[in-house]
Amino acid sequence: MADVAEAGTGRRARGGGGAARRAERTAVSVETARFIERNIPNFEVLNEEALQIIEANAETVLEEIGVNFVENPGALVRWRDAGADVRGERVHIPRGLARKLCSTAPGRFTQAARNPERNVEIGGNALVFAPVYGPPFVRDAEGGRRYATIEDFRNFVKLGYMSKWLHHSGGTVCEPTDIAVNKRHLDMLHAHMTLSDKPFMGSVTAPDRAQDSVDMASLLFGADFVQANTVMTSLININSPLTFDGIMMGALEVYAANNQASIVSPFIVGGAMAPVSVAGTLTQVLAEILAGVSYSQLVRAGSPVIAGAFVTSIDMNSGAPTFGTPEASHITYGTGQLVRRLGLPYRSAGGFCGSKLPDAQAAYESANSLNMGLLSGVNFMLHACGWLEGGLVSSYEKFVMDADQLGALHHFARGVAMDANGQAMDALREVGPGGHFLGCAHTQANFKDAFWRSDLLDYKPFETWDEEGGRDTQALASARVKRMLETYRQPDLDPAIRESLDDYVARKKAAVPDAFL
Amino acid sequence: MADVAEAGTGRRARGGGGAARRAERTAVSVETARFIERNIPNFEVLNEEALQIIEANAETVLEEIGVNFVENPGALVRWRDAGADVRGERVHIPRGLARKLCSTAPGRFTQAARNPERNVEIGGNALVFAPVYGPPFVRDAEGGRRYATIEDFRNFVKLGYMSKWLHHSGGTVCEPTDIAVNKRHLDMLHAHMTLSDKPFMGSVTAPDRAQDSVDMASLLFGADFVQANTVMTSLININSPLTFDGIMMGALEVYAANNQASIVSPFIVGGAMAPVSVAGTLTQVLAEILAGVSYSQLVRAGSPVIAGAFVTSIDMNSGAPTFGTPEASHITYGTGQLVRRLGLPYRSAGGFCGSKLPDAQAAYESANSLNMGLLSGVNFMLHACGWLEGGLVSSYEKFVMDADQLGALHHFARGVAMDANGQAMDALREVGPGGHFLGCAHTQANFKDAFWRSDLLDYKPFETWDEEGGRDTQALASARVKRMLETYRQPDLDPAIRESLDDYVARKKAAVPDAFL
Repeated sequence: MADVAEAGTGRRARGGGGAARRAERTAVSVETARFIERNIPNFEVLNEEALQIIEANAETVLEEIGVNFVENPGALVRWRDAGADVRGERVHIPRGLARKLCSTAPGRFTQAARNPERNVEIGGNALVFAPVYGPPFVRDAEGGRRYATIEDFRNFVKLGYMSKWLHHSGGTVCEPTDIAVNKRHLDMLHAHMTLSDKPFMGSVTAPDRAQDSVDMASLLFGADFVQANTVMTSLININSPLTFDGIMMGALEVYAANNQASIVSPFIVGGAMAPVSVAGTLTQVLAEILAGVSYSQLVRAGSPVIAGAFVTSIDMNSGAPTFGTPEASHITYGTGQLVRRLGLPYRSAGGFCGSKLPDAQAAYESANSLNMGLLSGVNFMLHACGWLEGGLVSSYEKFVMDADQLGALHHFARGVAMDANGQAMDALREVGPGGHFLGCAHTQANFKDAFWRSDLLDYKPFETWDEEGGRDTQALASARVKRMLETYRQPDLDPAIRESLDDYVARKKAAVPDAFL
Repeated sequence: MADVAEAGTGRRARGGGGAARRAERTAVSVETARFIERNIPNFEVLNEEALQIIEANAETVLEEIGVNFVENPGALVRWRDAGADVRGERVHIPRGLARKLCSTAPGRFTQAARNPERNVEIGGNALVFAPVYGPPFVRDAEGGRRYATIEDFRNFVKLGYMSKWLHHSGGTVCEPTDIAVNKRHLDMLHAHMTLSDKPFMGSVTAPDRAQDSVDMASLLFGADFVQANTVMTSLININSPLTFDGIMMGALEVYAANNQASIVSPFIVGGAMAPVSVAGTLTQVLAEILAGVSYSQLVRAGSPVIAGAFVTSIDMNSGAPTFGTPEASHITYGTGQLVRRLGLPYRSAGGFCGSKLPDAQAAYESANSLNMGLLSGVNFMLHACGWLEGGLVSSYEKFVMDADQLGALHHFARGVAMDANGQAMDALREVGPGGHFLGCAHTQANFKDAFWRSDLLDYKPFETWDEEGGRDTQALASARVKRMLETYRQPDLDPAIRESLDDYVARKKAAVPDAFL
């Protein structure tokens, strides 16, 4: 497969005749699109009156009900000093205080990648896509569903690196369950840093693992660079309802102190961790965002933070979380409005689905969710590709299916070109009633870039498709995964940096025994 | 299956113990939701300046380039009398004339069904779903892809009748290719009139077939009722670019003269029948709508009409039409804005896809398209379910998959309830930090109706799903199709009317020899 690999990096394969031509045709480019800058409006489901009601109710929640900061005495001190009414672990935040504290967080910031061409901006009209995060299982067409390993992890990082419409390498693209719990963050960071040159996320499962993330990033970027630039965006979940635990907040404290970004994100299955109504859930989400983002600013005013919302609904028959549902959309659109009024970057949405397979259910639910994400003004979309089975599974095939759809979102976000070429009056005059546009000058000049084209889906005539085996989308995706992994080439990295990362991981692993809890 | 059929109509099956209980569990209800009244805003991709440019350009197209009305001398006379500049078959319409003529068309009208509970309103904030229209082939999981027959046609009418979220029985749900071309409209109308009680569409393939449609509707509803009420909405395609043929316009003339509604609809694959740019295509679409709707008002001022747009993009590599693409979305959103400024009802979108199978591709593309249809302000959505392979195939499985997703659109369109119950402050107070909402009073009072729930998709735990055979969406849909057709019961119809319809069809069929062209 050497010729394929060469073609994959853009160099023309030499000799081999038919094989070389086949290689070129099947090679996968490693071009990466710039993050999206939206040239379209946001969809807003709430009117001004509804927004004001929810904002007032969220302040009532913070003041009257309060939030818990558990196992974190330092946080309680910070809150008391800021003017909150702290009773035990319960923090009652006076009306207006949280909103005021949030105002020091930047509305937009840059996350640097080790390849500066792949830096991303987070906030404003920008939209960044990152892959699935957290599944303990993986699935592919051949191997079925199984526990994820570090080999799977590395494969997903490679696929992410090669996915044109994916801007970010993500974090826990799957849980490498074959590595000790207290050490796997080292291997995960090492994979993101060495197998890809896109931006990535740090570890959040313990404060000292966050510190490892900062230390390894300092080896990769240089310590001064890290203190002056944001190089990691990490996922800090809130224990909804209204609870901030010491481990997650401890990780946030490490990141904020080092100028690194956190996503402060309620994790809510509506009906279980929040009220079974949209407006009630929005109220809780806003209260949790206000408290969590405020806390990041109490740790270090001006530290970069993203207001997140992982929110879905529940199937009241079975208790299962459901995805791509209309109520999840209401909440995501509404949260977008509330977060924009706070002037904060917004994280939500993704290619969510509950299906066990990368089938029609998976695609309906994911498309519902991806479209909503774009139109709701999301700035950082985690889980944009690869999510299956309610987040229990990272799917190889679904990863490339979703990643292909992200191209459609890029094109939609461009909006409508209204210059003279876009207006195409010359084409209308040239062709006239009953004519055909395929051959006209305007079409010839524009056809290459005019319409988005999938790199995966089937556009062939029925007969051709049938002769080639009548493959469904999963089969097409399976072939594409193989082709990508076969043609993957590691991006260049200074050998001295690579060695320092290898050493750091080896040293840290040797220092403590394995733990699997 | 008698007990299943009884349960299917809402009567409790007697005796049979386990079998009866199973029957009840698996029975399919024939409840039909009311058409949607949107309580959400529309998404608008064009700003005011862009709208004005396109509107001005469309007037330029009509005045300077003109439109062709071919093989229709009466139409040319009407246009000349109205003030157009007619040269041969080319009609040049002075700036502003078409917009003025359109103003007599109603902004909203009712289409009556024989069951008045199933009347639909078309226009304003209403949204009506109708099934796929036109495919010569059908596909199901067992039988594969094959030419459609009248038995297939009747099956799709039955499925439509039993689909809760589908408001309309449609028209040519598939082409019954086993019936002579000059007679199949009779069997199709007979099926819609007798196997369903939902509203339906008339024949448009020749003016005398449109007249048959009016005559049969007069038997079903009574002749006076038909003259006073709109009972059919029929699909009049424009031969884009800018050409109105005599056959389609002849059918439109019959319908307008009889107070029946027509959808005047450009049929455009962008890059082939329109410029390869969004703004250029929008200009042409608006010009065609202005000319076509004006013509309906020249035939009979005040006759009900829907401004349509069947618009998709082309794959410039293969020439194949593509579906669920971002450019098709731009055009659909933009046309919605332009049509609303004309004060007309809008037809567009549907569950469009190019896939050969009801797989992930089909679902991504269809979900993209269905969501866009809802947010673009469509009033009449043809092809809302069952469309496969670029419209060549009516798919049994996809029919029920899409029809299920239409339920999600219903729920999304409700918007966000902001009353005290929706705000759920009592629930937030009751549960507090770290608590659980499943058991609280607010959840108990609201859980049944709070969240949309699919009737088709899989929400089971992995282990249960796996034990039950690990079925994908197509397999679930296939089982649902069988269950629906087994439990179908024909809605009651006055035997005298039924007999008169039977007689009409038999008489008309006997009067002329079969023609297959």
